[in-house]
Amino acid sequence: MRLSRYFLPVLKENPSEAQIVSHRYMLRAGMIKQQAAGIYSWLPLGFKVLKRIEQIVHEEQIRAGHIPLLMPTLQPADLWRESGRYDDYGEEMLRITDRHKRDMLYGPTNEEMITDIFRSHVSSYKDLPLTLYHIQWKFRDEIRPRFGVMRGREFLMKDGYNFDLDYESAIHAYNRHMVSYLRTYERMGLQAIPMRAASGPIGGDNTHEFLVLASTGESEVFYDAAITDLKFGDRVVNYDDRAECEAIVKEWTAPYARTDETHDEAIFAEIPEERRRSSRGIEVGQIFYFGTKYSEPMGANVVTADGSRVPVHMGSHGIGVSRLLGAIIEASHDDKGIIWPEGVTPFHAGIVNLKQGDSSTDLACEALYRDLSARGLEPLYDDRDERAGAKFATMDLIGLPWRITVGPRGISAGKVELTNRRTGESEEMSSGAAVDRLAQIYAGI
Amino acid sequence: MRLSRYFLPVLKENPSEAQIVSHRYMLRAGMIKQQAAGIYSWLPLGFKVLKRIEQIVHEEQIRAGHIPLLMPTLQPADLWRESGRYDDYGEEMLRITDRHKRDMLYGPTNEEMITDIFRSHVSSYKDLPLTLYHIQWKFRDEIRPRFGVMRGREFLMKDGYNFDLDYESAIHAYNRHMVSYLRTYERMGLQAIPMRAASGPIGGDNTHEFLVLASTGESEVFYDAAITDLKFGDRVVNYDDRAECEAIVKEWTAPYARTDETHDEAIFAEIPEERRRSSRGIEVGQIFYFGTKYSEPMGANVVTADGSRVPVHMGSHGIGVSRLLGAIIEASHDDKGIIWPEGVTPFHAGIVNLKQGDSSTDLACEALYRDLSARGLEPLYDDRDERAGAKFATMDLIGLPWRITVGPRGISAGKVELTNRRTGESEEMSSGAAVDRLAQIYAGI
Repeated sequence: MRLSRYFLPVLKENPSEAQIVSHRYMLRAGMIKQQAAGIYSWLPLGFKVLKRIEQIVHEEQIRAGHIPLLMPTLQPADLWRESGRYDDYGEEMLRITDRHKRDMLYGPTNEEMITDIFRSHVSSYKDLPLTLYHIQWKFRDEIRPRFGVMRGREFLMKDGYNFDLDYESAIHAYNRHMVSYLRTYERMGLQAIPMRAASGPIGGDNTHEFLVLASTGESEVFYDAAITDLKFGDRVVNYDDRAECEAIVKEWTAPYARTDETHDEAIFAEIPEERRRSSRGIEVGQIFYFGTKYSEPMGANVVTADGSRVPVHMGSHGIGVSRLLGAIIEASHDDKGIIWPEGVTPFHAGIVNLKQGDSSTDLACEALYRDLSARGLEPLYDDRDERAGAKFATMDLIGLPWRITVGPRGISAGKVELTNRRTGESEEMSSGAAVDRLAQIYAGI
Repeated sequence: MRLSRYFLPVLKENPSEAQIVSHRYMLRAGMIKQQAAGIYSWLPLGFKVLKRIEQIVHEEQIRAGHIPLLMPTLQPADLWRESGRYDDYGEEMLRITDRHKRDMLYGPTNEEMITDIFRSHVSSYKDLPLTLYHIQWKFRDEIRPRFGVMRGREFLMKDGYNFDLDYESAIHAYNRHMVSYLRTYERMGLQAIPMRAASGPIGGDNTHEFLVLASTGESEVFYDAAITDLKFGDRVVNYDDRAECEAIVKEWTAPYARTDETHDEAIFAEIPEERRRSSRGIEVGQIFYFGTKYSEPMGANVVTADGSRVPVHMGSHGIGVSRLLGAIIEASHDDKGIIWPEGVTPFHAGIVNLKQGDSSTDLACEALYRDLSARGLEPLYDDRDERAGAKFATMDLIGLPWRITVGPRGISAGKVELTNRRTGESEEMSSGAAVDRLAQIYAGI
């Protein structure tokens, strides 16, 4: 993309309404625009990151054997009356009446609807196990939306639901989700720690939240430093293998890690003092096993091998897709702007032309643009007639992990400069070497 | 995907509520499930086709130089009070009140919001031309939703908006959209004819609808048969070239083609009788030029080169993404089921194992599955323990364009059977030849 043809409305001043760094940088980098309290438009740059995150979530869910579908944003109230949650949910549920005076609502979550889909179409144990998920906009009418997309009202979430014949199989689904989530967050450049959580209004016995450590987090967290040494890496997982998934879950749940809701001082005190940590964390996902809480009242039963009818064991598993943008920025920025991890960056590299209009630098930039594109990379070329300082400031603010700087002096020596956004380190090399280096870096992502 | 692990709830009986063939087949093929009047869940097979269509729309919009973003589903009523449409829109607008008693609505379209984004960030003619679009769920509270996704209430639409300095530039944007739409529909295997239309509540002087000919269409259409001979083909278009785009638009608008709303019997009568056609059509898109209708009341102005301030010229351009599934099926089916064009098929080919459990056919099917996947194709392997007849019926119903049948007799002769869903023609060949053939067919799509 050429910046002269893009829509990237960066702001020079700090927006006064933004209290935390991710909100501030998302506004300044022209990623979002507030349309009403807690409701945002995703401007082109923000939309690109949102799509990258969504794509990673899809890929990892499909890898785990989970099946994508899409439920609508609006739901009939009657479904929620069946589970008993219509009256329980409170004012966070946005209730709507249509022209025929039917009670509807903007879905804050989808346990009822997915259970309805299941009971309408599945009746035999032979069709189990089954895990269905979708990535869809939700609405929760927060009384005081704040922190930008971190605590919005209209937000994008991946929510998946497993249907299993018995407890053991449902726990395997739970473990499978934990494993797939660990992989998902790591691909986004995040360390999200699974922490034992308290069950909320969804209900459930086994539940873990995934928290990203950040000083602006809404939860207080306590953990054994040993957990931050764990890496998922590029291990290949057979998601059908119960023992393999269970072993990975054990590895990540053995070190102490809890939020304030489940924190136990006595157990925490047993950790060697030098490994005891407390911090704040941002919740970016949660997994639940809740058994037959919805299948029983809603009649989601299957016939077993011996001919009896039993309610299925379920769980629900969520990733806060839109919130992740905020969490990633909270975890990865400096005083100049965002620092995108390579896995989610909106563009793979920026090209800065130091002397727009100079035919040799223009030609070199165009060639770089073409060569990077030919290698499957997407560069953002700052081809505006601007000072070098302004171009650098924009690149730093929007946080592309790599920048290639092209100037007349370098070109006459056959060199461009490749700069790493995180370390600030620059290296001179030929254009071809810079393209090769970037292709190699991104091939490993 | 292996069918034994998929969620494909096909129905044996014809659902009584479905009056038209696309609705019937989408329900029978397990593509959708109604959750409330005019509100559907997209089951896995339907979701896959929806994503393919969405992907084609994105690719063609980006090719034309248009920039994707994403606006929220809910909008504040105040924006619509500025344009004067809040009171005009009538009962099709779903009005919502949040917990703080603020008036909101579920967006039926986005002229107001995109104009708000534009005026907040753009103030100079130097930032023009600009075309922004999104693909987002909309809601129109139809009094009598029917025909499945063809006339739903919650529906997915691509809507794009151009911002230009003057009339000529805006007309180029209009032409660019027409060209990109012709390409878009043709990639989906559809012939969508641009027809001069009457302007609706959005307003506008220049407007064309795109109609797919089908007996179940909602509009009566009149056209010169010459237009159905036009093919876009694989021509490469320079979307910046005004003359080139204009010439393509002329080519497609020269033959008479109008809906009943703009039909003119006198002009129609001048077409040679053997080329005069009347039929019914399904609207799958519309482009509008409406000038300063929104920019003026909403203050979307830019400063020109001579320092004056002028309201920008705008247009809006829509493609009915979810409705396209219905339109494609209406245009492409037989009495056994759907026939997907290769460009939008949910899976590239079906593999039917005639004797599940026979080790030689099982092995041959697994090898085929692997080989197709390795070539970047996505097969659906019917590995259920079912009669051949039932497997064929399912494949015919869900409409994959190609089927590979693997049986013990063929395998002993080193052959599989490749069948074309549309023609019904079968050909025996080696597994390797079938994989090569399919890879070749899809490489051209």
